[in-house]
Amino acid sequence: MSNVRKILNVVDLSQIFDQYFNSNENGLVRLRNPNLKSLDHDFLYHLELGTNDHDFVKMFGDVKFICTGGTAIRMKNFINSIEPELSKKLKTKLEIWQHSSSRYSMYKVGPVLAVNHGIGVPSLQILLNELFKLMYYAKMKNPVIFRIGTCGGVGITPGTVVITNEGVDEEINPYFVQVVLGKKIHLPATLDRQLVRELKALVNSDDPYDTIIGKTMCTSDFYEGQGRLDGAFCKHTIADKMDYLAKLQEAGVVNIEMECTAFAALTYQAGIKAGICCVAMLDRFKGDQIRTSNEVRKQWELRPQDIISRYILRHL
Amino acid sequence: MSNVRKILNVVDLSQIFDQYFNSNENGLVRLRNPNLKSLDHDFLYHLELGTNDHDFVKMFGDVKFICTGGTAIRMKNFINSIEPELSKKLKTKLEIWQHSSSRYSMYKVGPVLAVNHGIGVPSLQILLNELFKLMYYAKMKNPVIFRIGTCGGVGITPGTVVITNEGVDEEINPYFVQVVLGKKIHLPATLDRQLVRELKALVNSDDPYDTIIGKTMCTSDFYEGQGRLDGAFCKHTIADKMDYLAKLQEAGVVNIEMECTAFAALTYQAGIKAGICCVAMLDRFKGDQIRTSNEVRKQWELRPQDIISRYILRHL
Repeated sequence: MSNVRKILNVVDLSQIFDQYFNSNENGLVRLRNPNLKSLDHDFLYHLELGTNDHDFVKMFGDVKFICTGGTAIRMKNFINSIEPELSKKLKTKLEIWQHSSSRYSMYKVGPVLAVNHGIGVPSLQILLNELFKLMYYAKMKNPVIFRIGTCGGVGITPGTVVITNEGVDEEINPYFVQVVLGKKIHLPATLDRQLVRELKALVNSDDPYDTIIGKTMCTSDFYEGQGRLDGAFCKHTIADKMDYLAKLQEAGVVNIEMECTAFAALTYQAGIKAGICCVAMLDRFKGDQIRTSNEVRKQWELRPQDIISRYILRHL
Repeated sequence: MSNVRKILNVVDLSQIFDQYFNSNENGLVRLRNPNLKSLDHDFLYHLELGTNDHDFVKMFGDVKFICTGGTAIRMKNFINSIEPELSKKLKTKLEIWQHSSSRYSMYKVGPVLAVNHGIGVPSLQILLNELFKLMYYAKMKNPVIFRIGTCGGVGITPGTVVITNEGVDEEINPYFVQVVLGKKIHLPATLDRQLVRELKALVNSDDPYDTIIGKTMCTSDFYEGQGRLDGAFCKHTIADKMDYLAKLQEAGVVNIEMECTAFAALTYQAGIKAGICCVAMLDRFKGDQIRTSNEVRKQWELRPQDIISRYILRHL
């Protein structure tokens, strides 16, 4: 890694962060942007929430856990399913609150907030920027953020849950390439190893599926970018695809999705504890099309949600 | 460009395409993927439509114009607003049909189909792959596709409409970088110049806003990637931002959004006529926050829709 750092000018966040983590004694989220102090009003455009129009502390100050995932319906289902257990644990009937902008939908129950991030890094990156600012303005303390998603498996049984311990890009490099003012910056796609172990420890012996830890590859395309042969275009052969998947597997990659490097890098850069937990919809060695029935897919989507629910209920 | 082509191995699509354009006498959409012929059933996963479950020819065979844009609500409003004029022109009361998957929403009225593409290239790229396959299976003839969007202006008056004549990336290169099996491929972000002129000719002298033609820069981030100073992070100064915007302006860039290079490159690669028409929500030289009222933003969003509506009504 040190050679890679030198060659690619990978940002060493540990040095930059010392001042933030060390000064972060009260658990409040810190933002690495001094310009925000001079804004009289901050309008989070894509969330359609503004600091002058909404009381962020009142609305979100009690949030401890933030869950994100691709679709709004999964986020809504997650909040609906965790509400009874939360209400029971906190011994009060909790109300579900929701707010939809034209781009993102958020659902909140007690200390849990869930928001869809759409598909891919750009959509996720906008959401994370606005969520981090929301956490800051709301004075959230020690929030933990999760991505609960679906993915393609690399040599694993469909339905398996993957807890990501590191995000890698399409060239199996462990960082997220951000382009700022036309220049590439390489941010380490690092996740909290302790949180990975904690999530794994929440697996029940009678869960009817496997939960494994592994590297996750992030791509910016679902079709050719993941070696699929069934997109509108195909410039490669099945042999090229299989070679690529084998190379990924050899490097420890167990699944492929479209957000992990940015999720890991940006949460790490913000100093916010973060975890990624996804269910594999197919084994890419065996095919490209997702042919599992709608009903089975919906059952599988609950699996990573269950693990995150267990984490939340244990940490209340 | 020829030097750039050599250095970066830019794909020369004109050679590849000859066989497709030339053999395309009946106007049917051709797909550049021979593997699809061996699929007994093609499930367009993100649209939640399958060739065995849906009669694509019956559902979409009459579509001539496809409009895409970031949000579902804008697509719905577009279809609602064009319906009366279409019904009048075609002398029949047209019904609006809609289909929502958990990720995309489509609306159809007569020969016009509108679908939201979400935010950013990955989300757009999935939609285009599945739309191109849908066009092929539906046996659409000579479809034209548009992106109707919002953008940030570079030295132009807020509310101005921009017709894109070329997409450029963050380094002002006129191509889209696609990563296939870990290797970078550079696809030209070319748009139909004739269509650009046709769209410009549809501007009315009494339109209460300017419509201009220019280059559009595509970024993968809304905040730091566009030089904004108001994201959760900021690693640059206001002087860096202004220098970058000036450099863009000097190169002919008049607006910034998050999809144009992929939209141009993939439609060009598919041999489908395509245009991009966006309204600028602010002038980035003068600020980063979008402070225009919700009501004014909604009015402005109608402007590119109006131009595309005029095109559709003229070409029926």
